[in-house]
Amino acid sequence: MIGAGNVATRLAPAFKEAGRSVVQVYSRTADSAGKLAKILDTGFTTNLKELKQDADLYLIAVSDDAIGEIARNLEIMHKMLVHTSGSVPMEVLRTASNQTGVFYPLQTFSRERKTNLSQVPICVEAGSDEILAKLKLLASGISDKVVEVDSDQRKMLHLAAVFACNFPNFMYQIADQITRSANLEFSLLKPLIIETASKVQSMSPENAQTGPALRRDKKIMEQHLEVLENYPVIREIYKIISSEIEKSGSIE
Amino acid sequence: MIGAGNVATRLAPAFKEAGRSVVQVYSRTADSAGKLAKILDTGFTTNLKELKQDADLYLIAVSDDAIGEIARNLEIMHKMLVHTSGSVPMEVLRTASNQTGVFYPLQTFSRERKTNLSQVPICVEAGSDEILAKLKLLASGISDKVVEVDSDQRKMLHLAAVFACNFPNFMYQIADQITRSANLEFSLLKPLIIETASKVQSMSPENAQTGPALRRDKKIMEQHLEVLENYPVIREIYKIISSEIEKSGSIE
Repeated sequence: MIGAGNVATRLAPAFKEAGRSVVQVYSRTADSAGKLAKILDTGFTTNLKELKQDADLYLIAVSDDAIGEIARNLEIMHKMLVHTSGSVPMEVLRTASNQTGVFYPLQTFSRERKTNLSQVPICVEAGSDEILAKLKLLASGISDKVVEVDSDQRKMLHLAAVFACNFPNFMYQIADQITRSANLEFSLLKPLIIETASKVQSMSPENAQTGPALRRDKKIMEQHLEVLENYPVIREIYKIISSEIEKSGSIE
Repeated sequence: MIGAGNVATRLAPAFKEAGRSVVQVYSRTADSAGKLAKILDTGFTTNLKELKQDADLYLIAVSDDAIGEIARNLEIMHKMLVHTSGSVPMEVLRTASNQTGVFYPLQTFSRERKTNLSQVPICVEAGSDEILAKLKLLASGISDKVVEVDSDQRKMLHLAAVFACNFPNFMYQIADQITRSANLEFSLLKPLIIETASKVQSMSPENAQTGPALRRDKKIMEQHLEVLENYPVIREIYKIISSEIEKSGSIE
């Protein structure tokens, strides 16, 4: 396991639980490497030159920026080399190995939170059918949803994930600020947030939409813009998204 | 029950289940009024002048625009008159009754979807302690979360709800478009959407944030902006929100 961040810390124990053996952890920092190695009851290194040479799979789960550099410093030509990134093409691994692949878990991982991987789509891609079969087998050990996704599709999926996860979460952040400014608890919004996410599990987001912009309720929207007068950026976000909802939606 | 839309259609049956009797349904359109009245096994009218005069409570659950007009056409001075809006001040009811209140369920309602109300915060406000007590009792029959919220706070809560619900849902809509354009299924994103909403049930949105903007991963963001080149508005939304996440967040 090359990397010991959020993704590595979720994947490695899941592999172990699925009966795979994680023989070594690498990280630039001894602290991170040591922590994950301890969870796995295995060894670790902070030196790429000390990687064990007899592993079946070398899985790079580091930040997108660092993947290329690690690949350039690896020499494992006839070993399976795979990264976990949503955005980096498989090609960057070619210099280091002739058995390349991608193993991209489509989920948001935070250190403090344990995630159930069984429902998380694992998007796999490989340079050959043989590697693809191996990755599918590995993925099916930890998740019920294994899908083949090529590098171009994966890039789009990652962009979609930003809109499905990071941006809604930022909207929650703004909602948090607004409730606090009115001496109200953010927790009042929690059932609404869950219901909004739950609705699109069985309805299209288009059909699930509600609210003043969809209803084209100009009076309420003007009221809201007035409240946001001293928050120009949030006000701009409100305007642009509301205007798009107005355009896209049919009346409630 | 004055109104027969999404909110009325959720609340009225819940009241009935809680042992309250809904004696009549009003709606401008006979079709809507009739449908809801049938569910409740009660009568309906499309004429405000034909409202039964002996109800304990007149609950206005219509679009924000229409509340004032209905209030102007009601004469029930010594009866309890309450609306369900997040944005309309209680005062608009004053001309019609001297026993006014607000009963605002903080949730997104769609006709096709049955919502469990027990976890939905009911925000109550009233012109007197007596009415407040009655509304709290009524609310506690259908929900475990009853909170007192004044008109100013309620306006802010409604604005926060737009950011917690309508805007995330519009982000899902964009994600849906992006996945479809790459021949991928939107359903791949469903576990991510649920996990994102679930995280903020126990973490602050700030701590839950992940993704390229938080990591200040310029390369990925430029790649994403390139993909969105032909979608100027979505591109603008991407830029403005990413820039705010960059500013607000600490490095992952």
